[in-house]
Amino acid sequence: MIIQLKENASYKECDSLKEMLDSKSFRFTEVKTQLGKYLIALGGNEIDIRSIGNLRAVRDVHAVNDKQQLVSSKWKTSPTIIQLGNDVQIGHESFSLIAGPCSVEDKVQVEEMRNFLSDQQIDIMRGGVFKPRSSPYAFRGVGIEGLKYFSALCHEKNIKVITEVMEAEKIEAMYPYVDIFQVGARNSQNFNLLDALGKVDKPVLLKRGLSGTINELLYSAEYIFSGGNERIILCERGIRTFETSYRNTLDLNAVPVLREKTHLPVVVDPSHGTGKKEMIEPMTLASMMSGADGVMLEIHKNPEKAVSDGAQSLNFKQMETLNQKIKMTSEFLKDLNGKF
Amino acid sequence: MIIQLKENASYKECDSLKEMLDSKSFRFTEVKTQLGKYLIALGGNEIDIRSIGNLRAVRDVHAVNDKQQLVSSKWKTSPTIIQLGNDVQIGHESFSLIAGPCSVEDKVQVEEMRNFLSDQQIDIMRGGVFKPRSSPYAFRGVGIEGLKYFSALCHEKNIKVITEVMEAEKIEAMYPYVDIFQVGARNSQNFNLLDALGKVDKPVLLKRGLSGTINELLYSAEYIFSGGNERIILCERGIRTFETSYRNTLDLNAVPVLREKTHLPVVVDPSHGTGKKEMIEPMTLASMMSGADGVMLEIHKNPEKAVSDGAQSLNFKQMETLNQKIKMTSEFLKDLNGKF
Amino acid sequence: MIIQLKENASYKECDSLKEMLDSKSFRFTEVKTQLGKYLIALGGNEIDIRSIGNLRAVRDVHAVNDKQQLVSSKWKTSPTIIQLGNDVQIGHESFSLIAGPCSVEDKVQVEEMRNFLSDQQIDIMRGGVFKPRSSPYAFRGVGIEGLKYFSALCHEKNIKVITEVMEAEKIEAMYPYVDIFQVGARNSQNFNLLDALGKVDKPVLLKRGLSGTINELLYSAEYIFSGGNERIILCERGIRTFETSYRNTLDLNAVPVLREKTHLPVVVDPSHGTGKKEMIEPMTLASMMSGADGVMLEIHKNPEKAVSDGAQSLNFKQMETLNQKIKMTSEFLKDLNGKF
Amino acid sequence: MIIQLKENASYKECDSLKEMLDSKSFRFTEVKTQLGKYLIALGGNEIDIRSIGNLRAVRDVHAVNDKQQLVSSKWKTSPTIIQLGNDVQIGHESFSLIAGPCSVEDKVQVEEMRNFLSDQQIDIMRGGVFKPRSSPYAFRGVGIEGLKYFSALCHEKNIKVITEVMEAEKIEAMYPYVDIFQVGARNSQNFNLLDALGKVDKPVLLKRGLSGTINELLYSAEYIFSGGNERIILCERGIRTFETSYRNTLDLNAVPVLREKTHLPVVVDPSHGTGKKEMIEPMTLASMMSGADGVMLEIHKNPEKAVSDGAQSLNFKQMETLNQKIKMTSEFLKDLNGKF
Repeated sequence: MIIQLKENASYKECDSLKEMLDSKSFRFTEVKTQLGKYLIALGGNEIDIRSIGNLRAVRDVHAVNDKQQLVSSKWKTSPTIIQLGNDVQIGHESFSLIAGPCSVEDKVQVEEMRNFLSDQQIDIMRGGVFKPRSSPYAFRGVGIEGLKYFSALCHEKNIKVITEVMEAEKIEAMYPYVDIFQVGARNSQNFNLLDALGKVDKPVLLKRGLSGTINELLYSAEYIFSGGNERIILCERGIRTFETSYRNTLDLNAVPVLREKTHLPVVVDPSHGTGKKEMIEPMTLASMMSGADGVMLEIHKNPEKAVSDGAQSLNFKQMETLNQKIKMTSEFLKDLNGKF
Repeated sequence: MIIQLKENASYKECDSLKEMLDSKSFRFTEVKTQLGKYLIALGGNEIDIRSIGNLRAVRDVHAVNDKQQLVSSKWKTSPTIIQLGNDVQIGHESFSLIAGPCSVEDKVQVEEMRNFLSDQQIDIMRGGVFKPRSSPYAFRGVGIEGLKYFSALCHEKNIKVITEVMEAEKIEAMYPYVDIFQVGARNSQNFNLLDALGKVDKPVLLKRGLSGTINELLYSAEYIFSGGNERIILCERGIRTFETSYRNTLDLNAVPVLREKTHLPVVVDPSHGTGKKEMIEPMTLASMMSGADGVMLEIHKNPEKAVSDGAQSLNFKQMETLNQKIKMTSEFLKDLNGKF
Repeated sequence: MIIQLKENASYKECDSLKEMLDSKSFRFTEVKTQLGKYLIALGGNEIDIRSIGNLRAVRDVHAVNDKQQLVSSKWKTSPTIIQLGNDVQIGHESFSLIAGPCSVEDKVQVEEMRNFLSDQQIDIMRGGVFKPRSSPYAFRGVGIEGLKYFSALCHEKNIKVITEVMEAEKIEAMYPYVDIFQVGARNSQNFNLLDALGKVDKPVLLKRGLSGTINELLYSAEYIFSGGNERIILCERGIRTFETSYRNTLDLNAVPVLREKTHLPVVVDPSHGTGKKEMIEPMTLASMMSGADGVMLEIHKNPEKAVSDGAQSLNFKQMETLNQKIKMTSEFLKDLNGKF
Repeated sequence: MIIQLKENASYKECDSLKEMLDSKSFRFTEVKTQLGKYLIALGGNEIDIRSIGNLRAVRDVHAVNDKQQLVSSKWKTSPTIIQLGNDVQIGHESFSLIAGPCSVEDKVQVEEMRNFLSDQQIDIMRGGVFKPRSSPYAFRGVGIEGLKYFSALCHEKNIKVITEVMEAEKIEAMYPYVDIFQVGARNSQNFNLLDALGKVDKPVLLKRGLSGTINELLYSAEYIFSGGNERIILCERGIRTFETSYRNTLDLNAVPVLREKTHLPVVVDPSHGTGKKEMIEPMTLASMMSGADGVMLEIHKNPEKAVSDGAQSLNFKQMETLNQKIKMTSEFLKDLNGKF
């Protein structure tokens, strides 16, 4: 049960509510987000929810049976749209394109990339500065200094910056330079990081774990939401299966299921999801038809020279072609959805 | 190495060829399909393939390194089109729609279905008469008698019949009534059945196994092809993963990978692939964009009364809407591919 | 509900029973095995089972809620022991060792192997004569002629023969030479084959599918049992997972779970289960402690020269050592179980 | 290539070595652990390693081709033993038993548990004080205050304390109270945490990820080792597969493979690995025979009242019985290994 509190509810009024929940054996958690105050009440006896709704402190009350509460579409039925400023948004009736290199390498690379994105009217650039790598001896990123020029160069052209944060204690240092914090697949259940991102007033893109279920992804989003941050984007990026013909198995089934279960926007990462550049175009277009709100793509001027993930990066020419196809498909989808 | 023989090659000419292969330590398999004669030569020493090409018996020779030979697109680069008569075909530049119930139930059901398909201009009807069921106590199909009326009713309206064959010894009895033999996921590596279907002069739709790799699917197709039957359609139908939000995990990644590896057409089964009727429409449209040559769908007049798989069947109204969307998307795809 | 009928129940007495079940909306299946007659009744309304038990036709009645009925330990609580003659048995308080080559190659190989097994007091020899191979161009076995000498040579020394049957129509030809029919992982849900083996009066060893669940394995066993053959041995042989350090992931968890759910004996195949000869010894001993009734091992005089599966075969010397360890562990287990 | 440096090597001597590596195009990483100084050199041209070995700075040099270097048994062939003080150790020829509740609940619980362990001569107690939970509304642990009494009560009786650390910034606060830091499955690739634990001079028990490969586990251990901490214990705790009869699929195959690949000790967690208390005893004994150096078990005075994981916890009586069986099996294993 989600009980939304009135902004001006007094302590006394809130206490009456809590006493009532207590008397009915509910456990409850107080949640204060940047947009509102809630009590999440779990367990408890049979109750007529109108007896809650009539209390002074209460603005609204919803019975939600799922274990994921605040991210559920049963509570909030309208889709959440993430506003990023300058008319850039993710979610609902616009298809978002996020592109950039796997790793930020140097200023020249960022500048060329940003110019290319700007020409292509792509509004959001991805690029890792802290890289999670299986081996301690692999390249681990240019770090915070790289983030600074990445951010400065992009913002000059009104391009938004998304980059991965790997630990709670880096959030503060990264904060001024980042428009969207990305949580990688390996940190999808790093609950301390999720808790910390709940305190941040910038959007979070949360990737599904390598063997993460849909429900676990929603639980992880619930951590961020109940921590205080309602602006969450979910990302399908391929799961681990027995098949070895591709690096991961991009699971587009997740898209319609998430669309049904949650009000949060869903983007797809076909680059990591497949690990093979030849598959990116068909899987991007397939993502669009499955209902995704956007895709995140790895591109590189010279994929064969990339410090990481070259095999799954498009070059500029390929991106340009795909961008045109995405636009045509986007128009077509509007048509199609308009007719039915 | 695939060596295509001249139709009129003499025994003596063939023997020279075999001696040469022998002397170079090749193992070889003679393959006679309904369309040609081949020697598949594996292993062997370094050889200049022109020395083979120059022999009298040889029409053509191709070096193919893959373990799948005859199904490889490295050998036959043009896509295979399966002609079913009356201008019905599967593969290449036409998107095929196969629809029908999971199980054939009775004459009335088949007649209503066939009329519906005819109205919808859907040319191929699916329907199981021998049902593979996990439990021996579940409904196991109407059998050969059901197939007879299923076939008769469909053929009256020029609708083609596809149905599953579960054992080699049933092929003969089913033969007069079937237009496409379907091999189910559980029989994907039933090599005796595959061998037997190699002797048949009707097309075979081969489903990927529940935990079957792409390579295993191609090997299984190679069984049918090398057994003599070149008319094979591959079918992605969902794999088994850890995720429990859907019955299977439809793996659309298989589509672009198969398109690259083989000349055979590829269709997708979103009904079994997901097990949830709400997911069928988005996953069907996504299949189209991933490059599939067709889809196979389960539909039922009253899904909630179906003897099997009701949860994953569309009703007639839903099928009608989806059919319109498929047609619009098909037109759009022609446009899109025409421009690039 | 499992209703065991009296051997001498009259038609009329049986009819009364069926009418009663009918009136309570049960669906029922008549099962006649080599050991008894049963009615398996599913669905149905609430019923006091004593009202069934009191009927003349009924010898015994058990309420079993599982979907697997006759193989369930809720019905038959004592472990099933498979008698093979000459004091050779599988199941309950004896640990069985089945060993032999992956493929029968020739008479000399069989004779050497049989002599070795005889020296080692190993009573059951495995050996494939029809080989299920992913590729149609791989070695596919010596066939029925090979089975004849395999059988003749083994029986001379009172060694029992187990070999894989891949299709129902081969059963008859194989019958005189086989002591246990083996169903391979790829045929674990080949329901026609399972049905056919239900009619046979020799034991069947049924392997778990590559991605087969425990419940599916039990359902497949239920096919054989309800087809008429109660003498079934289950075999864990490794499942398909994401891990690539071993060929399959031998799943010893299956052993205690099967021991709890079914009365049938359970053996383990560490050779296929791991695909690596170094792992066979530790996984064999681990199998014993997990509660297995036996193991099936691949051995070869010269593993590096084996026509198939050399990488997972022990040589004679390794088998000899392992045999001693198995015997010691077997003694220890008797001690251990005796004390608690 | 692992180059162990002399403790007293001069800067100049080291520089000569680095210049040489540079000239041969090696990338290298300097590693200083609590026990020694190393250069890990990767890539590079063909080189006669004696030319390295002859340099003044070098104590020893090993060619290791694996991507995991310092944890490899190709470099350090003798098994690593983790000394915990008071004659408590993990690894090599002693079988270790770690037991305790999933979650620390209160002082009374810890005191009763500790007394029980002391009676049972179990030297190491597990107990979570920070709990990683899928849902933000679940119990998340008693925190650092709980750790203080947990540690104090255990140390009174010379029982060592192992508990999970979920974030780098908690290490310092936990340090005085912990004997072994545990890294949970969800943090198996939390590289910041692994880096931070490399700086700590207390042992680390590292769990395999839910869908972590053997190689990824070794890479994660390499992070800790190359960060400076050589005292690492690996833990198999079940992987995620399609099977739903158990919570996870305990993968005992990992034990012999890890024993071959690494010198680090390997323990098994059958409680999380299976999630079912009935399976713990057989899987514990099976672990022993597979070659494990120890097991970690969840026990609780009243499993049905545990705040978490009751379904997979043994009660005291069950633990007592299992402890006796472990001792008997341990004796038997010494016998067995003594004979061969």
